Amino acid sequence: MVKVGILGAAGYTGGELIRLLLNHPEVEIVFANSESNAGNLISDVHEGLLGETEQRFTAEMPFDQVDVVFFCFGHGKSEAFLKEHTIPENVKIIDLAQDFRIKGNHDYVYGLPEIHKEEIAKCQHLANPGCFATCIQLGLLPLAKAGLLTKDIAVNAITGSTGAGQKPGATTHFSWRNNNFSVYKLFTHQHLHEICQTLNELKPEGVPHVVDTLNEGFEAEGITVDFIPYRGDFARGIFCTTVVTLDHCPVESDIVALYKTFYEGAAFTHYSEKSPDLKQVVNTNKGIVHVEVFGKKVVVISMIDNLLKGAVGQAVQNMNIMFGLDERAGLNLKASAF
Amino acid sequence: MVKVGILGAAGYTGGELIRLLLNHPEVEIVFANSESNAGNLISDVHEGLLGETEQRFTAEMPFDQVDVVFFCFGHGKSEAFLKEHTIPENVKIIDLAQDFRIKGNHDYVYGLPEIHKEEIAKCQHLANPGCFATCIQLGLLPLAKAGLLTKDIAVNAITGSTGAGQKPGATTHFSWRNNNFSVYKLFTHQHLHEICQTLNELKPEGVPHVVDTLNEGFEAEGITVDFIPYRGDFARGIFCTTVVTLDHCPVESDIVALYKTFYEGAAFTHYSEKSPDLKQVVNTNKGIVHVEVFGKKVVVISMIDNLLKGAVGQAVQNMNIMFGLDERAGLNLKASAF
Amino acid sequence: MVKVGILGAAGYTGGELIRLLLNHPEVEIVFANSESNAGNLISDVHEGLLGETEQRFTAEMPFDQVDVVFFCFGHGKSEAFLKEHTIPENVKIIDLAQDFRIKGNHDYVYGLPEIHKEEIAKCQHLANPGCFATCIQLGLLPLAKAGLLTKDIAVNAITGSTGAGQKPGATTHFSWRNNNFSVYKLFTHQHLHEICQTLNELKPEGVPHVVDTLNEGFEAEGITVDFIPYRGDFARGIFCTTVVTLDHCPVESDIVALYKTFYEGAAFTHYSEKSPDLKQVVNTNKGIVHVEVFGKKVVVISMIDNLLKGAVGQAVQNMNIMFGLDERAGLNLKASAF
Amino acid sequence: MVKVGILGAAGYTGGELIRLLLNHPEVEIVFANSESNAGNLISDVHEGLLGETEQRFTAEMPFDQVDVVFFCFGHGKSEAFLKEHTIPENVKIIDLAQDFRIKGNHDYVYGLPEIHKEEIAKCQHLANPGCFATCIQLGLLPLAKAGLLTKDIAVNAITGSTGAGQKPGATTHFSWRNNNFSVYKLFTHQHLHEICQTLNELKPEGVPHVVDTLNEGFEAEGITVDFIPYRGDFARGIFCTTVVTLDHCPVESDIVALYKTFYEGAAFTHYSEKSPDLKQVVNTNKGIVHVEVFGKKVVVISMIDNLLKGAVGQAVQNMNIMFGLDERAGLNLKASAF
Repeated sequence: MVKVGILGAAGYTGGELIRLLLNHPEVEIVFANSESNAGNLISDVHEGLLGETEQRFTAEMPFDQVDVVFFCFGHGKSEAFLKEHTIPENVKIIDLAQDFRIKGNHDYVYGLPEIHKEEIAKCQHLANPGCFATCIQLGLLPLAKAGLLTKDIAVNAITGSTGAGQKPGATTHFSWRNNNFSVYKLFTHQHLHEICQTLNELKPEGVPHVVDTLNEGFEAEGITVDFIPYRGDFARGIFCTTVVTLDHCPVESDIVALYKTFYEGAAFTHYSEKSPDLKQVVNTNKGIVHVEVFGKKVVVISMIDNLLKGAVGQAVQNMNIMFGLDERAGLNLKASAF
Repeated sequence: MVKVGILGAAGYTGGELIRLLLNHPEVEIVFANSESNAGNLISDVHEGLLGETEQRFTAEMPFDQVDVVFFCFGHGKSEAFLKEHTIPENVKIIDLAQDFRIKGNHDYVYGLPEIHKEEIAKCQHLANPGCFATCIQLGLLPLAKAGLLTKDIAVNAITGSTGAGQKPGATTHFSWRNNNFSVYKLFTHQHLHEICQTLNELKPEGVPHVVDTLNEGFEAEGITVDFIPYRGDFARGIFCTTVVTLDHCPVESDIVALYKTFYEGAAFTHYSEKSPDLKQVVNTNKGIVHVEVFGKKVVVISMIDNLLKGAVGQAVQNMNIMFGLDERAGLNLKASAF
Repeated sequence: MVKVGILGAAGYTGGELIRLLLNHPEVEIVFANSESNAGNLISDVHEGLLGETEQRFTAEMPFDQVDVVFFCFGHGKSEAFLKEHTIPENVKIIDLAQDFRIKGNHDYVYGLPEIHKEEIAKCQHLANPGCFATCIQLGLLPLAKAGLLTKDIAVNAITGSTGAGQKPGATTHFSWRNNNFSVYKLFTHQHLHEICQTLNELKPEGVPHVVDTLNEGFEAEGITVDFIPYRGDFARGIFCTTVVTLDHCPVESDIVALYKTFYEGAAFTHYSEKSPDLKQVVNTNKGIVHVEVFGKKVVVISMIDNLLKGAVGQAVQNMNIMFGLDERAGLNLKASAF
Repeated sequence: MVKVGILGAAGYTGGELIRLLLNHPEVEIVFANSESNAGNLISDVHEGLLGETEQRFTAEMPFDQVDVVFFCFGHGKSEAFLKEHTIPENVKIIDLAQDFRIKGNHDYVYGLPEIHKEEIAKCQHLANPGCFATCIQLGLLPLAKAGLLTKDIAVNAITGSTGAGQKPGATTHFSWRNNNFSVYKLFTHQHLHEICQTLNELKPEGVPHVVDTLNEGFEAEGITVDFIPYRGDFARGIFCTTVVTLDHCPVESDIVALYKTFYEGAAFTHYSEKSPDLKQVVNTNKGIVHVEVFGKKVVVISMIDNLLKGAVGQAVQNMNIMFGLDERAGLNLKASAF
């Protein structure tokens, strides 16, 4: 049994992580830390756990009793936490925030199993990818690796309200969001950093640099990821379309074959022959991709559940890989479907 | 032209009132007061007004320039406001809060036009009914007046999220409320006060007293209104079913006739021959009622838009009556329908 | 491994059953029968199965290769099917339709594990309860057994759109149902039959007969279940409130204790100390109940997922009991929660 | 008073047209034709009209008694109808279908008031634009006229379910569409015809031809409109983003000024300084546009209510212009807002 500690256990991702781990056959939750909820029943705070656990939140952090710690903090707090606390070297860390996703003066591996499975298996510290970032990358990985990204990339991705977190606000007020639609962080979403990092990592030599416009500006040489994020009026899921312009008109079946081959061994990412719809992935750890070709344009559809494959589902998948467990353990989830 | 001032103009009811009054042929909005939004464009704060007005919120309250003031405060603040401010005697007041709905040491008329039209026409100060209270009363008035309420009354009413106001919170968070359902204030909703007041006012002599359980408790002699309020996962509207048990099995057509006759002259409340659905009233000032009989049980369906007939629509209807205008002026609203 | 055949496998319940059974550790799906979809991939028809199975629908019905057959037909078709086909005696049948729920000239056991676990364990043929019927009964069982049902019972239950089945129609059209609310089959829902059967079966001697008004009319001697079904604007779940009037004012903690004791050993039905909300059960096989007392009135809240505890989840639970498996096998489902 | 006849009056657009015209101060509905509903109360068929009219559908078509006829048929039926019926020359026709939107052997004017107001004022026969087409064009008109469309245009537009019409089907089933998201007619939506026609009509000489890929294919010389239509899980409205790449990096304020100037005199289309959200236009005849600039890319947001500015609202606006009425008559609609 893998012994798990959870920090930030009272938030959205903390709750979803507990929902997963309670049914994971190889995991024991040793502690679920939350200062503000210390002593409260987990099932009193997190929807959907009544009858599944009598465990309570704790203010303690007994790191010596666990094999792995999940950081379910808000962004920026993981790094701060590590400055003030020491976690034993033999305890693995899976950080769900964005603090260590960009390479730098740290040893965190970017945990996208579709491309980094071997590094993940060996790593001690893992940075779990962002939700939009996961969905957009799943749509682009095969083209990136094939060196076909030579022109600006148009990304449109719609997210559910859980992407905005637990704290209520104007744009998550039901009266406002219900039956509504809007955009935000137009062309400036912070997940562009990790997307560009991956695309540049994968691309063969000679293919244009992917410009991280947030750092380099729009005038820098290279191609850009023009990402429009939308607020959808649903709770779970990200639905993404990506339009890539190739240098020459491709044969559609070649592009389809590229995707099928790329995802052949993936545990959760599947190619759909038919144009898919979002609820096929809701409440699962799946990624679904589909492509169609029009002239030189390749249209890619990719979709995930933002809380699962886009957050804690992928984190558990990474944990499974890190501990040599079946990659699908605890993740055979029934899709909501309706 | 009726000159109007609005206090609490930046809230939900304030916004909906402005949306109505801008298209009212006989009204001029002289001031829309909001301390916190003073100087801001009304159309920047209230959804759906772009292109309709360049007016701004003001911190001023020039009561001498208006014929009527609408109080769109939160509950309890109207009375407090009047203790600290003086409104000229010739200026009419329409209070949307619950402060003066119960008879007492004041001259406010309870503004339910279906029963108080004459008093409304003559009054200087008006207390606008609550949303649930309006919907439930519309379902019960004909039976109450006919003296048929002799046993406990079962009321189930589902409200949209706008009933919870503008301030975001846990039960109006989209991620929680979307596709969800729950109850609140079981048997103890504050609108019971005004409902019981009306039912006791209408009932013929000899018919049992209607117990206001919030004041008198459940043991008091008389009949009770057993009201279960529900939180629905829609934004606008109240859908209510009421089951009344009669002493003898009635003929259904007699009960139907009672309702049709009662609402014959009503400007906005209609009897539906068919079992209605909520969207027939959404975005209108209508009340719709429908009855069916099973043995001794009369089942009444009643429905309104909580922000319109349940709040500012009824307030404007009352204003029309108070100023001798066409009762429907400014209220010929296109139903959303979809 | 239990070998399973499914008839009517292309419908809503068929699909949800397949979603469950694919992850059931002790089950093998031998055939999924559908005439109209014979040869088609199951994952092409049923949402959410991509990547989980390559199995196809078949027009065959090899009963000799299975241990149990699930009937996922529309109501009335199970009986007709059995007149035209012979199923080997050693093959168990679980019928999801209403054909055999009422006792009569057949050996089907009514499969509500909360009261019939022993009979279920021994039975060869099982009639799976209806969705509304399950939810309403879970709310009433403890009071019924305690002999406390002596007055008419007021039931209000709201169902999601999946309760209306797969065939599109006017009241399941998104443009109509979205943000809408309505009632149907007022006081005449067909599930009253099975509810009344259970209540009369459980009640101690001397307690009034529960009248099945659909058969006996509203004038018959006894008490009635006054059931108002509502169409909610969500896809999954039933939320039910039941108001029971006792002869004397009870102590709330006694009633709560009655419920807790009754459901102590139940595998999926739990008592909630807090007023619950529907999404706690959505996408799970749970039933949640909660009670509050006001004077002589007991208000019961009960809720289930209509497709799971209200249909195929309960069917699998029954299958587990019938085959001596862990009652929870294949049913440790992660709640949607959002 | 303008005397109006309506053909196809029992459909979605027919219903919404009646909802508008009943409150139009200068209009009398002489007949509302529907074969299948002849004799039925209009308020029995169309949601939201109870208490507003006692008028019934008729199988008659007394063209000699009207000034204008609205064709609310399905696409393709207008032309067929005119082959079998004669409408007097002095009776104006407003066709809501797509039959006469493309110039050809007919005298129908394309009724987009933002560019064709003068022709509309003089015309006898009018082709009302499509919903997506209206929304997308409102986003592109200023750039087109300024000759700034020199590269392929990326359009992403999400529509509500009412865009799919009244007939229930798989993708309008509530159980499927609720909380779901998907695309359809990728790059091949039929509204491309009218969009391209307008863009080519407006563009100055020397600017590239806009290729109607449905007719000319993706290899033709010129620029393309790469349009991805999405099915949103709301009932009303179209939310559209358009990304246009200019030859040089523009100054944002210049582009904003271009839009403001272009729409200065428009009766219903407004420039929003803030990033808008869909519910600002729902249940109104407004179009709202907003632009932001990133490098050489101009991102345009445009939005309308598909049934109003995208169909019958614009049709009534056109009728107002054709009959010399106030362009806004009957169209001062209160936004739903929530």
